[in-house]
Amino acid sequence: MLKDFVYYNPTKIYFGKDSMDNLEIELKNYGKKVLFVYGGGSIKRSGLYNKVIQSLKNTNKTIYELSDVLPNPTYEKMMEGANIVKKEKIDLILAVGGGSVIDCAKGIAAAAKAKNPWRSFWIKNKPTPKKLCPIGSILTMTGTGSEMNGGSVITNTDVNLKKGRVFDANNYPKFSILNPELTYTVPEYQMLSGIFDIFSHLMEQYFSGTDDNVSDYLLEGLMKVLINNTPICINEPTNYEARSNIMWASTMALNTITGLSKDQDWEVHSIEHQISALTNCAHGMGLASISVNYYKHIYKYGLQKFVRFAKNVFNINQENISNEQYALLGIEALDKFIKENKMYYTLQQLGCTQEMLPIIAKTCDKDSSGYKQLTTKEILKILEESY
Amino acid sequence: MLKDFVYYNPTKIYFGKDSMDNLEIELKNYGKKVLFVYGGGSIKRSGLYNKVIQSLKNTNKTIYELSDVLPNPTYEKMMEGANIVKKEKIDLILAVGGGSVIDCAKGIAAAAKAKNPWRSFWIKNKPTPKKLCPIGSILTMTGTGSEMNGGSVITNTDVNLKKGRVFDANNYPKFSILNPELTYTVPEYQMLSGIFDIFSHLMEQYFSGTDDNVSDYLLEGLMKVLINNTPICINEPTNYEARSNIMWASTMALNTITGLSKDQDWEVHSIEHQISALTNCAHGMGLASISVNYYKHIYKYGLQKFVRFAKNVFNINQENISNEQYALLGIEALDKFIKENKMYYTLQQLGCTQEMLPIIAKTCDKDSSGYKQLTTKEILKILEESY
Repeated sequence: MLKDFVYYNPTKIYFGKDSMDNLEIELKNYGKKVLFVYGGGSIKRSGLYNKVIQSLKNTNKTIYELSDVLPNPTYEKMMEGANIVKKEKIDLILAVGGGSVIDCAKGIAAAAKAKNPWRSFWIKNKPTPKKLCPIGSILTMTGTGSEMNGGSVITNTDVNLKKGRVFDANNYPKFSILNPELTYTVPEYQMLSGIFDIFSHLMEQYFSGTDDNVSDYLLEGLMKVLINNTPICINEPTNYEARSNIMWASTMALNTITGLSKDQDWEVHSIEHQISALTNCAHGMGLASISVNYYKHIYKYGLQKFVRFAKNVFNINQENISNEQYALLGIEALDKFIKENKMYYTLQQLGCTQEMLPIIAKTCDKDSSGYKQLTTKEILKILEESY
Repeated sequence: MLKDFVYYNPTKIYFGKDSMDNLEIELKNYGKKVLFVYGGGSIKRSGLYNKVIQSLKNTNKTIYELSDVLPNPTYEKMMEGANIVKKEKIDLILAVGGGSVIDCAKGIAAAAKAKNPWRSFWIKNKPTPKKLCPIGSILTMTGTGSEMNGGSVITNTDVNLKKGRVFDANNYPKFSILNPELTYTVPEYQMLSGIFDIFSHLMEQYFSGTDDNVSDYLLEGLMKVLINNTPICINEPTNYEARSNIMWASTMALNTITGLSKDQDWEVHSIEHQISALTNCAHGMGLASISVNYYKHIYKYGLQKFVRFAKNVFNINQENISNEQYALLGIEALDKFIKENKMYYTLQQLGCTQEMLPIIAKTCDKDSSGYKQLTTKEILKILEESY
């Protein structure tokens, strides 16, 4: 059944080779004090750090820096940024990096306005005040879609929890600059992790509902973009067209416009969040390790959709086979896509120990709206199969 | 070659059966004086007029009305609205109807700020001032996508020109309410005209470029939505799922997010604008009358894309045929889609006389970025074939 929806996404996107030309134009729209948030040394090695500093200087900004925002950004790092925003009355948070950096920036903007941010925003999911410090972003890595949505996944190491929160549109980046060329230097392993993260975002939205739905057609199209472009990116990392397609598919996969009116699943993400909370593994590789086994557990409960997946996403065209066989051919094609594109790792290879499996199964969120609500025992089985 | 792009679309969409519940919530965000713009008697017959008046009263608005905004809205009517906005210092223009009413509302907001609006905005394409009277919309008919973009097509009967203008995002509707049930009472002919308008929007964007492009995958998905849902809408006009899919596909087809980084064609629209400027025919039917002949004239210049269209949109799967044959099978499938779904009329049936054909060919815009720039003579040939 199609659900009613509200859609509102005011992020302005500058996309393409010359998109950085818009940075100074945008900077002029904000006050003097800028908190420049970034990760490790990669933006220094690539020269992007210097370019950003130059643009900040050209527009007469006072620059504050928060560096070392690492993958799976921590609550502690976020609070460090929030304290700067509060203390210095920052006018703009400029996040330069991948999804972790932008997720952290959203957390910073919200946390600067709350007494107990973890409890308020990640546990109790309270709304934020309307007036938050605005965020701009320059994306250097694709996958999370954070550049055009309200998602913010933060890891709280005190309680061993990695939790996602979706903020209101007043905490979306006001602008995001996406230059596919900036992704050329991302190491292959990270690029592929990002690509499977995108694929998983699409599947999490796709595998729900029994209705015929505009969103499903869009999701199918985006999955085909990934299937066609991933091998090109592996063989020729500086192929602009392929990198550009992956980058924009990544944004589209999670700017919410392709999941409208759907229930959505997100159980694979919930399980993986606990895998990477314990192992700090690459998020996309964590998703790839469990996806096939997860879908083998649930496909019977949404059989028609898995048949459609085989036909429309992987172009499988067979006569005289049962729906069940069709569905399994689709899941096998997904398995093949993962393995042929170097995305397959066992949980053990990702750093899990056998002792971790029951902890992951127990602590992960189980509020899926997909085809089947899984028990702790069922999730443990999936983890064991993926070990 | 993928083009750089800027995407920014701040329209808030309320979609679904209960979406009208948001009208009063939105009205509270604006000042006291509301100009209620609508078309003929259909919203009075359906009871929608009374509901809107009630909501305006419940929120203590002073109501000004501009009625009789007809299909192919005129410059004269638009100026009538602009004069009310200026004189009464209107706080919100509430457009209730189809694309014509919303197009007119955008024209009104801009015209209220200019000395010679036709020349400034439709001929010289000048930017508007930043501060325009805000617009909200309640959509009762699908097709134009006007509810989530800056398009405004106005007919100036003084000079026999129908011209489209795309306004900046500061002239987009601030909010649009889309309830598929409101479209149930649209007569079949108008519904089908709207559906072909959507199909044409998708093809105008699709048939350009030789690159592999995310947008093309999305456009293919939306064309398939129309192919699958149109027969259902004809057979069962109150099928919520099908009407809902058509309504949302219509918005998506022209909120600009599915055409990003593409050159785009729009020649079929340019020709049709002059057909309906002279005949006042239903826009979508005018498009349907010339599309097949138009594509037969240009397919050789974008052959690979027409092959892809046959395969990915109409699922044509043939072995041992040439690309040329493949392309033609796709165009034939389009022809069949038009004819089987009662969208086919000759130009004569739409009210054209033979004398009009050279005038249409001569006066229509020829600034297409599609596969082939047509001459007046070539366009005349297409018109004669479609007569």
